Amino acid sequence: MRLHIVNPNTTASMTAKIAAAARAIAAPGTAVQASQPQMGPVSIEGYYDEAYAIPGMLQRIIEAERDGAEAHIIACFDDTGLDAARQAVAAPVIGIGEAAFHMASLIAGKFAVVTTLDLSIPVIEHNLIRYGLASRCARVRAGGFEVLALEDPGSDARHRLSAEIEAAKQGDRADAIVLGCAGMADLAADLTQQHGVPVIDGVAAAVTLAEGLVRLGVKTSKRGGYAPPRLKPYAGIFSGFAVGGA
Amino acid sequence: MRLHIVNPNTTASMTAKIAAAARAIAAPGTAVQASQPQMGPVSIEGYYDEAYAIPGMLQRIIEAERDGAEAHIIACFDDTGLDAARQAVAAPVIGIGEAAFHMASLIAGKFAVVTTLDLSIPVIEHNLIRYGLASRCARVRAGGFEVLALEDPGSDARHRLSAEIEAAKQGDRADAIVLGCAGMADLAADLTQQHGVPVIDGVAAAVTLAEGLVRLGVKTSKRGGYAPPRLKPYAGIFSGFAVGGA
Amino acid sequence: MRLHIVNPNTTASMTAKIAAAARAIAAPGTAVQASQPQMGPVSIEGYYDEAYAIPGMLQRIIEAERDGAEAHIIACFDDTGLDAARQAVAAPVIGIGEAAFHMASLIAGKFAVVTTLDLSIPVIEHNLIRYGLASRCARVRAGGFEVLALEDPGSDARHRLSAEIEAAKQGDRADAIVLGCAGMADLAADLTQQHGVPVIDGVAAAVTLAEGLVRLGVKTSKRGGYAPPRLKPYAGIFSGFAVGGA
Amino acid sequence: MRLHIVNPNTTASMTAKIAAAARAIAAPGTAVQASQPQMGPVSIEGYYDEAYAIPGMLQRIIEAERDGAEAHIIACFDDTGLDAARQAVAAPVIGIGEAAFHMASLIAGKFAVVTTLDLSIPVIEHNLIRYGLASRCARVRAGGFEVLALEDPGSDARHRLSAEIEAAKQGDRADAIVLGCAGMADLAADLTQQHGVPVIDGVAAAVTLAEGLVRLGVKTSKRGGYAPPRLKPYAGIFSGFAVGGA
Amino acid sequence: MRLHIVNPNTTASMTAKIAAAARAIAAPGTAVQASQPQMGPVSIEGYYDEAYAIPGMLQRIIEAERDGAEAHIIACFDDTGLDAARQAVAAPVIGIGEAAFHMASLIAGKFAVVTTLDLSIPVIEHNLIRYGLASRCARVRAGGFEVLALEDPGSDARHRLSAEIEAAKQGDRADAIVLGCAGMADLAADLTQQHGVPVIDGVAAAVTLAEGLVRLGVKTSKRGGYAPPRLKPYAGIFSGFAVGGA
Amino acid sequence: MRLHIVNPNTTASMTAKIAAAARAIAAPGTAVQASQPQMGPVSIEGYYDEAYAIPGMLQRIIEAERDGAEAHIIACFDDTGLDAARQAVAAPVIGIGEAAFHMASLIAGKFAVVTTLDLSIPVIEHNLIRYGLASRCARVRAGGFEVLALEDPGSDARHRLSAEIEAAKQGDRADAIVLGCAGMADLAADLTQQHGVPVIDGVAAAVTLAEGLVRLGVKTSKRGGYAPPRLKPYAGIFSGFAVGGA
Repeated sequence: MRLHIVNPNTTASMTAKIAAAARAIAAPGTAVQASQPQMGPVSIEGYYDEAYAIPGMLQRIIEAERDGAEAHIIACFDDTGLDAARQAVAAPVIGIGEAAFHMASLIAGKFAVVTTLDLSIPVIEHNLIRYGLASRCARVRAGGFEVLALEDPGSDARHRLSAEIEAAKQGDRADAIVLGCAGMADLAADLTQQHGVPVIDGVAAAVTLAEGLVRLGVKTSKRGGYAPPRLKPYAGIFSGFAVGGA
Repeated sequence: MRLHIVNPNTTASMTAKIAAAARAIAAPGTAVQASQPQMGPVSIEGYYDEAYAIPGMLQRIIEAERDGAEAHIIACFDDTGLDAARQAVAAPVIGIGEAAFHMASLIAGKFAVVTTLDLSIPVIEHNLIRYGLASRCARVRAGGFEVLALEDPGSDARHRLSAEIEAAKQGDRADAIVLGCAGMADLAADLTQQHGVPVIDGVAAAVTLAEGLVRLGVKTSKRGGYAPPRLKPYAGIFSGFAVGGA
Repeated sequence: MRLHIVNPNTTASMTAKIAAAARAIAAPGTAVQASQPQMGPVSIEGYYDEAYAIPGMLQRIIEAERDGAEAHIIACFDDTGLDAARQAVAAPVIGIGEAAFHMASLIAGKFAVVTTLDLSIPVIEHNLIRYGLASRCARVRAGGFEVLALEDPGSDARHRLSAEIEAAKQGDRADAIVLGCAGMADLAADLTQQHGVPVIDGVAAAVTLAEGLVRLGVKTSKRGGYAPPRLKPYAGIFSGFAVGGA
Repeated sequence: MRLHIVNPNTTASMTAKIAAAARAIAAPGTAVQASQPQMGPVSIEGYYDEAYAIPGMLQRIIEAERDGAEAHIIACFDDTGLDAARQAVAAPVIGIGEAAFHMASLIAGKFAVVTTLDLSIPVIEHNLIRYGLASRCARVRAGGFEVLALEDPGSDARHRLSAEIEAAKQGDRADAIVLGCAGMADLAADLTQQHGVPVIDGVAAAVTLAEGLVRLGVKTSKRGGYAPPRLKPYAGIFSGFAVGGA
Repeated sequence: MRLHIVNPNTTASMTAKIAAAARAIAAPGTAVQASQPQMGPVSIEGYYDEAYAIPGMLQRIIEAERDGAEAHIIACFDDTGLDAARQAVAAPVIGIGEAAFHMASLIAGKFAVVTTLDLSIPVIEHNLIRYGLASRCARVRAGGFEVLALEDPGSDARHRLSAEIEAAKQGDRADAIVLGCAGMADLAADLTQQHGVPVIDGVAAAVTLAEGLVRLGVKTSKRGGYAPPRLKPYAGIFSGFAVGGA
Repeated sequence: MRLHIVNPNTTASMTAKIAAAARAIAAPGTAVQASQPQMGPVSIEGYYDEAYAIPGMLQRIIEAERDGAEAHIIACFDDTGLDAARQAVAAPVIGIGEAAFHMASLIAGKFAVVTTLDLSIPVIEHNLIRYGLASRCARVRAGGFEVLALEDPGSDARHRLSAEIEAAKQGDRADAIVLGCAGMADLAADLTQQHGVPVIDGVAAAVTLAEGLVRLGVKTSKRGGYAPPRLKPYAGIFSGFAVGGA
């Protein structure tokens, strides 16, 4: 099975880290191909960065589909451009945010999300409402640190993350934790151990779900909002891009 | 990986059919063990039958866990006894109803459920509300036939099922269909082809989700409502059963 | 009028206490018959215990109906087996949890529930969602004590219960309190006095509602999910029980 | 027990009819006192009529409380002035609309409301949302006739009412019917018989609920929005009325 | 354009203050006419006062419409009698509460309401649910002071108001503040400055919305619940009032 | 006052039409500046087109803000890129979809949306859920025609639009109609006349709301999700664009 995971930002080191996390969980017969857009922000924090990340990301998804990818994963916890991607290709597309929410719903009554910055809380809350799973989420919390700080030994980011997890357990009565950032993928096992509750990483969750959809033989429904884009002229720099009818 | 799928009713032929469907989708390294309770109704139609199916089903789940099962699937679309099962054992437990709802949410904006009898509609609607996914379900429909009729060449059950799928597409604006009965597992591929929309079977969906949870290394949270049952005396015929502390 | 109240656990002293509470509130012409199952757990704490309490409880309800009961009350705050019981008999069936929620909704904008153990919170929350009354409940709280401790002079259970009631008034802005356990039936009047807010006990609430339904001459609707169970074989120890068609 | 039922409109014949319906269901020891305001509209159809019915109705409720009434029933299906009445007096106040909704919730999964005129549908829908019970109501329907037409042998009102009940059963999948007008109180038994589903009348439902609350010994919570009105000057024709501090 | 703003209470000084606030924001071509009822309470705190304020207020609205008003504003944050007023006249009617909620929704993800007394919280919460905007409101808070205290230099009301705004920002994660009382109209600009978040006053918001509706040329829909009241006799002191058919 | 309205697609004739509609409703002192992006699709139908429209549109909004615009209107009914635009600038930003929903909520109990293509229904439904106004919308309907067909005398588009409006009135019980496409701006008055219900156009609605916000002196809250984008490198073709810190 050929699985494509796209990092929607333009930072190669993060693409590598995400690819490694995906390959670590992938089934034996699954080939994971990772990509990143050629243009766009080096990281995605909030709606504005998302807007500039999506066009390039869609190109990567369209290319990967042409190259034989059987499913696509969008490796940003905001599920950046998920709806547009579902229109663009036939194969299933999964966001790591939704993947984590669905998996957490199977092993806990209520989960909490712990992300990095306050800026991301409304984006995540909007997604939960749209997916229908807001009632399963006790609260979306932010630790107030940047994701890269988790790898800086002198930072208190790791400490803050644990503090938010404890607050979610005690204050929000959350039974499970969802890590709200692709860059936390390598922490899930340790945090599960440390805090005594299931801690879910979206990258790993999405890989297993993508494999599952491929094995089920189902693709994105092309009725409703995910019908293929209509072929039409695109102006300016976008005129060189793959457009409707993809 | 050792996966246990329990048919909550006492009909061996249905257990065999479910086991076959599960093995057909299971990954190469997955061993699927199927079981059925020793006591209880021959089929489950509504709340009353559920009540008598659960005690025996829980024994099968507890036994399978002791024998090394790493995840359990409850193969009745009503997700019979799901909460009690999650309390009873440590490994993840998945109902085929919830499995289908979650998978359908990944490939369609809205799905419809098509089940057999009117009696089952409220049970399924209740589950959708509890899971939080009611907003993703356009409608729960029943064809007005018994599941076994699907295998009777002289019955119009298959025709009725297709009629409900078309009604869901046109009247309810559903983009995908969830088959609301374990006994329809073998029809998903044909119906997907015939109706031009993704059709999801819960048994197959649950197998891939169970494998995914095992690979993620997460188990049911034991905080909240799924804490292990407290050890206490059970009276009467239940006194010989495994009780709290399992 | 003949009213049947079933204690779903197998502890005779609790049955007696519940019967006394029911008779204390019953109208002059109402004969209250109390029962308990022959088999099942000595107390019900969470989903697992519920599963083993229901089959025996349903038998008691079916027997009582045959003996002329005009309405049934399930005296566990979790409303154990309520849906199955409504299928099993023609007369109305009321759970003490729902009874308390409905009555509290008539005398307060928002109520809080105070129960015994954390384990029971999700069960009660699920019921509130299903009944539609979640928006009327400010919060479900647990005091962290077992119900029997309320009768132990050396225990701080009574103190904890009061502390949760005050927390509900101040922190949750609750206007009324629902006692979340059948074993608290005798405390409602004192607590109303002590805390200056209406405090509702479900046993008393259910008795007045059951009498009301009988006087209205309405029975459980047999359309939808409460249609009588279909007659079918039951295997194993359940084969000797009353089955479908009851 | 002394029960006060107020007809919020100024039509004496309707007051008499409502009083008769209330006395027919009241328990042996219950004395039902009926009243109507001295000023206001002869019937209540929509928000505008409600506004002029409430001041006079509140005076009747305050007077009845002073004369010893232990509970009050507002006998208009719109639950006219219910919140203000709860502020005005200490004894419980029940609207016949909410009474019917709560009772229907105890004997059916979903109910439908059938009222007289389209104008009343939004009022009833608003109440259902506020009470929290909107999810239990399949639909609010109007037959398009005036209530008095039900007593005119030459009218097709009775036929229209039955047609809406059948539409609610078939089209809305309603399991029970709530009659959405005080003037239909005498039809509930016949319609239950005729249509084979429970049909609930709000006047009778409210009487049993009011008796229940009195026996439970609970009164309207005076925390939150039902705190007694603050004593203050009232200008104009209202200056002679009972004001705050009641 | 002729705009009518009615203060539903009988205190002339408050009418003058509201008129000044409305004129300060009104567009150059807008003539603002202010009124107050001849009868009713001197201030509106809770449901009971509302009931006595509405009849006199409706007369003012009907008179103003006859005198050429093209839109009406109800200047009490509870949106007192809004539905009845919409039935009574053809021109648009806007409550200052709803006006503030809608405007706040355009410049913030979530807003909080800060009002004066606890008594008003449930009224405002009910309105938010009915309008559909409850999900946009983080919390309704009360400072525990009377509105007139804001103008008393010796009072700590202004301090309490600021404390609630800070609590809403920190504790409720509100991004904007809605002032929950007509008497706070003059504080919005200062508080916006002081607290660094948008602070919305309902009087000003309503003026701009009313002007907008008039310019759009739309009036209240007369389908559904806002159809004109049916002409019918009114008894008692109300018989001299404008009734149905207005 | 300087108002900026951006047509997010690259078709100049539509920009001109939108500008004319905006200027027709704008107040005397308002200068309306219209713009369109240099790059992107010629029309926006669904999520995919949106993705390529947003980057160029954001540039236009940032430029207009630098040139003194005091408020911005996004003239696509999908409210394309609304959240990103709110992050990008300080002045208020309004989408024509949300503008129409809010205005319709002020003059009707429930409204229906009538748009052009099925593809747009889910986008609009998602927005309604996010804004909190889904409960006010009876249904989103599509006429099955392209917007340009409305100007083709030989097309039946105008007939289809009217048919959907009638269906919304009769079948969905909608009291008002929202036109779900910027290109229908010139039809609102005629359709209001023809169908006897208020018909709202989003462009006009947004102009009055934008003017209102400017006169209120409030800007987008910079707490929460609309905080300014953080300054960071953008790669590829986007590196020449205005980035974070705007």
